[in-house]
Amino acid sequence: MIELAENRYGKSRVRLMKVTRHDHGHDLREWTVQVLLKGDFDSAHLHGDNSKILPTDTMKNTVYFLARSSKATTMEDFAKELADFLLGRNPQVQSVSIRVESTLWKRLTVSGKPHPSAFMRGSGELQTTSVERAQGGAFHILSGLDNLVLLKTANSGFEGYIKDSLTTLPETKDRLFGTAVSAEWHYMSSDLEFDVIRKSIRETMLRTFANHDSKSVQQTLYAMAETALEAVPEIDEIEITMPNKHCLLVDLSRFGRDNPNEIFVPTDEPHGYIEARVRRKP
Amino acid sequence: MIELAENRYGKSRVRLMKVTRHDHGHDLREWTVQVLLKGDFDSAHLHGDNSKILPTDTMKNTVYFLARSSKATTMEDFAKELADFLLGRNPQVQSVSIRVESTLWKRLTVSGKPHPSAFMRGSGELQTTSVERAQGGAFHILSGLDNLVLLKTANSGFEGYIKDSLTTLPETKDRLFGTAVSAEWHYMSSDLEFDVIRKSIRETMLRTFANHDSKSVQQTLYAMAETALEAVPEIDEIEITMPNKHCLLVDLSRFGRDNPNEIFVPTDEPHGYIEARVRRKP
Amino acid sequence: MIELAENRYGKSRVRLMKVTRHDHGHDLREWTVQVLLKGDFDSAHLHGDNSKILPTDTMKNTVYFLARSSKATTMEDFAKELADFLLGRNPQVQSVSIRVESTLWKRLTVSGKPHPSAFMRGSGELQTTSVERAQGGAFHILSGLDNLVLLKTANSGFEGYIKDSLTTLPETKDRLFGTAVSAEWHYMSSDLEFDVIRKSIRETMLRTFANHDSKSVQQTLYAMAETALEAVPEIDEIEITMPNKHCLLVDLSRFGRDNPNEIFVPTDEPHGYIEARVRRKP
Amino acid sequence: MIELAENRYGKSRVRLMKVTRHDHGHDLREWTVQVLLKGDFDSAHLHGDNSKILPTDTMKNTVYFLARSSKATTMEDFAKELADFLLGRNPQVQSVSIRVESTLWKRLTVSGKPHPSAFMRGSGELQTTSVERAQGGAFHILSGLDNLVLLKTANSGFEGYIKDSLTTLPETKDRLFGTAVSAEWHYMSSDLEFDVIRKSIRETMLRTFANHDSKSVQQTLYAMAETALEAVPEIDEIEITMPNKHCLLVDLSRFGRDNPNEIFVPTDEPHGYIEARVRRKP
Repeated sequence: MIELAENRYGKSRVRLMKVTRHDHGHDLREWTVQVLLKGDFDSAHLHGDNSKILPTDTMKNTVYFLARSSKATTMEDFAKELADFLLGRNPQVQSVSIRVESTLWKRLTVSGKPHPSAFMRGSGELQTTSVERAQGGAFHILSGLDNLVLLKTANSGFEGYIKDSLTTLPETKDRLFGTAVSAEWHYMSSDLEFDVIRKSIRETMLRTFANHDSKSVQQTLYAMAETALEAVPEIDEIEITMPNKHCLLVDLSRFGRDNPNEIFVPTDEPHGYIEARVRRKP
Repeated sequence: MIELAENRYGKSRVRLMKVTRHDHGHDLREWTVQVLLKGDFDSAHLHGDNSKILPTDTMKNTVYFLARSSKATTMEDFAKELADFLLGRNPQVQSVSIRVESTLWKRLTVSGKPHPSAFMRGSGELQTTSVERAQGGAFHILSGLDNLVLLKTANSGFEGYIKDSLTTLPETKDRLFGTAVSAEWHYMSSDLEFDVIRKSIRETMLRTFANHDSKSVQQTLYAMAETALEAVPEIDEIEITMPNKHCLLVDLSRFGRDNPNEIFVPTDEPHGYIEARVRRKP
Repeated sequence: MIELAENRYGKSRVRLMKVTRHDHGHDLREWTVQVLLKGDFDSAHLHGDNSKILPTDTMKNTVYFLARSSKATTMEDFAKELADFLLGRNPQVQSVSIRVESTLWKRLTVSGKPHPSAFMRGSGELQTTSVERAQGGAFHILSGLDNLVLLKTANSGFEGYIKDSLTTLPETKDRLFGTAVSAEWHYMSSDLEFDVIRKSIRETMLRTFANHDSKSVQQTLYAMAETALEAVPEIDEIEITMPNKHCLLVDLSRFGRDNPNEIFVPTDEPHGYIEARVRRKP
Repeated sequence: MIELAENRYGKSRVRLMKVTRHDHGHDLREWTVQVLLKGDFDSAHLHGDNSKILPTDTMKNTVYFLARSSKATTMEDFAKELADFLLGRNPQVQSVSIRVESTLWKRLTVSGKPHPSAFMRGSGELQTTSVERAQGGAFHILSGLDNLVLLKTANSGFEGYIKDSLTTLPETKDRLFGTAVSAEWHYMSSDLEFDVIRKSIRETMLRTFANHDSKSVQQTLYAMAETALEAVPEIDEIEITMPNKHCLLVDLSRFGRDNPNEIFVPTDEPHGYIEARVRRKP
C-alpha cells in the first residue's frame, strides 16, 4: 500500500516593487515572495478534488492586495501579515510559510546630494526572511542574507592539516580568502525591530571577517557566528555557509619571474564548502 | 555561552569527464561530484587547529585518483567507493556524504549509424545520487533526477477550487501543463542495478505524466509517484517537486480574433510550486 | 555640435508558444521573437515627440495577433510575414529586423509510440533566424543555430604550433575536442524550404565534425563550413564560431598512476575562441 | 569555389586578480581578459598547418606574465601593453584586439574606517574596454560600461505615440523607468587619463538619467549621450543601449482598491530595446 506523506504547495517568484511617495522623495522596495501552504490536501492528490485548494494564482493576488494596504516596512512584518491573512481565510490550511527575498537598490547621489527619485541596483546580495506559522501557533522567524561576496587579502593562512599520499596542496601563511556568505538566524521573539537587528548582525559579521586572523574558513565562520550571537541577544542561533572560492597563485617561475602573492586566478569551480550552525547553549 | 552545533565541510563542483575506450568505440561520462564530511572538527572551528582537517583539495585529488581505478559504471557505485575510501583513511570522520550529478551526453548518429567517438550534449536534465555512510553504518542512497522539463497539451484541467474575493483565475477543462520535474527516491538496499532501476522509474513517471487525465498538478504528481513505487519494488519512497510553469492563453478578442487554446505566452515567474513525498505504508 | 547617428528600437524576448491541433495529435512550437525598427525617429530622440513611435507593446501584440492567423510553419516564413505586416502599416519605418529563436521540444515516446500531446524539452541548442527588409527592398535572411554542444574523443590533435618563452602547452596527437557551435548562414533567395535546408546544413556540420581528422579547431571549423556550402547550393556564405572548451588531462603520476587519456577535468574558463566566415568565391 | 573570408581566434575568460600591496593597505583589481588575433592563418584553416598559430594557452600565460611586471593602473593601459607585446613577438599577426572587463570590488568600511585588506563585491555593473591595434597602426580604443541597472520613480511619461488597431498600452504621464545601461565610447587619443574620464562620463550619464524629464527612453538615452559628449572633449562618439525593463502597475480595482502608482510587478521579459549612437558632427 502507498500513502501520501509530507506535502505542500504554493506560489514562487511573486515579484513586487513598492514605491512609497513622501513629500521629500520616494522609497523603493523590491521583494520576491514565496507562499507555501501545508494542510489537508489529500483529496486533491488522491481524487483530483480541488475543493480545499486555494489557487496559487489567488496567492499571487493576495500578495499585491496586501502590499497596498500594509504599513509594514520590514520583510518580516509583511510576511507575518501575509501569513495571518491566509491562515484566517483558509481553515483547511494547517500552516503557512512565507519567504521574502529583498533586492538591493541604492538611492543615487547626484551633484553630492541624495536624489529623491532615482535609484541604482546594488550588489547581488539578498536579504531574506522565512516566516512560518501554524493555525493557533507562534511565529517561527528565520532571517538571513545570501550571496554576500567577500574577499580578504591579508590575515589568512592554512597550515597543519592532514597530509597523506593524495595531498598536493602546499601550506601557506598568507593566502587570499574569498567567499560568498549565506547566513540565517533564528529570532527568539516575533515582535522586534528587524531592520535594526539585521544591520547589527551583518555589520558584526563583516567586522569579524575583516579583522579575524584566519587559520581556516571554519575558524573564521565560527568567529563570525559567535560575535553575531554575542552582539545580538534577540537571536539564539545562526547557521552560516561559506564556500571557499579559491584564488590560485599563478606559477610565474616557469617564465623567470617571481610572484609574491600578487597575481592570482580567481576560480568558480571546484570550490570548498563549509557550513556550521552555532547556538547559545541551552 | 555559545557552542558549535551541526557542521560539515567538503568540496563542491569537482568536475570529472571519463572516457572509456573499447575496441568498438568510446563511452563518455561527465559527473560533477560533491564530497561532504561530518566529524570531530571542533578544534578547527574553536582553536584554528587543523590537525583533523583533510583539505578539500585532497578530496578533489581523491575523486580523480579513484575515478582512474574504479570499475563502477553507475554514479551510485562510484559514490559508494568514494565514501568508503574516505571513511577508511579518516577515522576522525563520522560520516561521509557524496553527491554526484550526471550531465547528459548522447552519441552522435552519423549517416544512420552510431558514431564511435562523437557526442552531443543532451538536455539540461540531470541524473543525481546522494550516498551517505557513517563509520560502521549502512549506506543511505537517494537517487533522482532534476530539471526534467515536460509539457502536455491535452488532458489537463483545473476546476472546482476555492473562490473568494481575491480569485481572478478562470476555471478550465483544457490547459497547457508545463513543469520541470525534480525527483528523489530512496533505495531499500545498496547493492542494486541502479541504472536499470533508474530507467524504469523515469519511464514510469514519463508515461504517467503523458497519459494522466490531470485535475491538478497535485493529482498528477501523486500518480507519477504512485506508479513509480508500484513499478519498482526496490524503492520505498519518492519525493517529487513539480513547479507549475504557466503558459498563459493570450486574449486576442481585443483584436477581433478568437484563440481556441492555440497561442500562449510561456512564463518563468511567478510559478506554482508543488511538492510531495509518497511512500509505502509501513 | 552633436548629432544622432544610427539608432533602432523594438521589443525583445516576446515569447510565443503555439499549439497546432491535428486529429492525430498536436504540434508544439516555442519561439522567442525580437522586433527592431529603423526609421525616422529623430524627433523622438531630440524633442520627445512620440508621434512617429509605434509602442514596443504594440509590437508584442502584433506578434501574437499574427501568430494566430499565420500559416507559416518555419520561423523564416513567420518572420517574413511579421516584417511585411509592420512595414505595410508604418511608412515612417525604414527597415524592420525580426529575430526568432526556437527552443527544442521533442515528442515523448510512451510505450514505444510517439505520444500525441506530451513533450519533453530538448537540449539547450537554439535554432535561429534573422530576417531584415527595408521598405521596397528584398529580404535579407540569415539563419543559424546556437549552442550546439559537441565533443569528440578521437581524431583530434594539436601540434606544430609556435613555441616561445611563454609556451607551456605540450603537443598532443590525441586530445578531447569539445565545443559549442554557433553558426549563421546567408540564403541567396527568400522563398525556400527553410526547414529542409536547415536540416541538411546541420547534419553536414555534425558529420564533418564527427569524421574529421582534426589538426586544430580552425581546420575542423573550416571543413564544417566548406562541406555545408558544398551540400547546400541555396546559401552563399556561413559564419561559424567554435570555442575550444578545454578538457584538461589530470596528472595522476603524482599519485603513482598513469592516465592514458581517460580522466579529464572539463572547464568553462578560460576557453579558446575561434571564428571564421567562409563563402563562395564571387 | 569556396574561400576563407574574415577570421580571428584567441582566448576568452582569462581571469586575473591582482593584489597590489602598499604600506597603508592593499589594492584589488579583478579583470577578465579576452585576446583575439587576426592575421595570416589560411594555412591552418585549409591545411592543418599550425606553424603560424600562437596557442591560445600561450596567450593566457602572456596575460599573467605581463600582469606581474605591468605598471598599468587602468584596463586601457594594460590592454595597450598586452596588444603591443603580442604584435612585437608575432609578425604573422595583422592586428590584435584586447577586451578587458572589470568586476567591481569595494573596500569594506569597518568601525567607520576603510579596511586595508578586506573587500566586498559591488554590483553586477562591469567596466569595459576594447583596444585594437594593427601592425604599425594607431590604437583604436572603445571603453564602456555594461549592466548599470537604474530606475527612476518620477519624471517619466510616455504619451502621443501611434495608436492603431493593435494598441492596448494606455498613455501615462507618470511611470517607473527601469533600465540596464550599456554604453561604449570612442577615445580620440590613446594617451589619456582613462579613469578620470570614465568617472566623468559615468557621473554625467547618471545625473542626466536622474534629472531628465523623460518623454521616452529614446529621449533620455539621447540626453545622456549628449551631455556625456559635452562634458568630455576626449571622446567623439558614444553608443548607448537601454532596454526598457517594464514595471507593470497592478490592477487592484478588481479587489476594490486603488493603486496610485504604488504597487508594481517588475518583469524581465518581454522588454523594450532602445539603442543609438550619438557623435560630434564632423
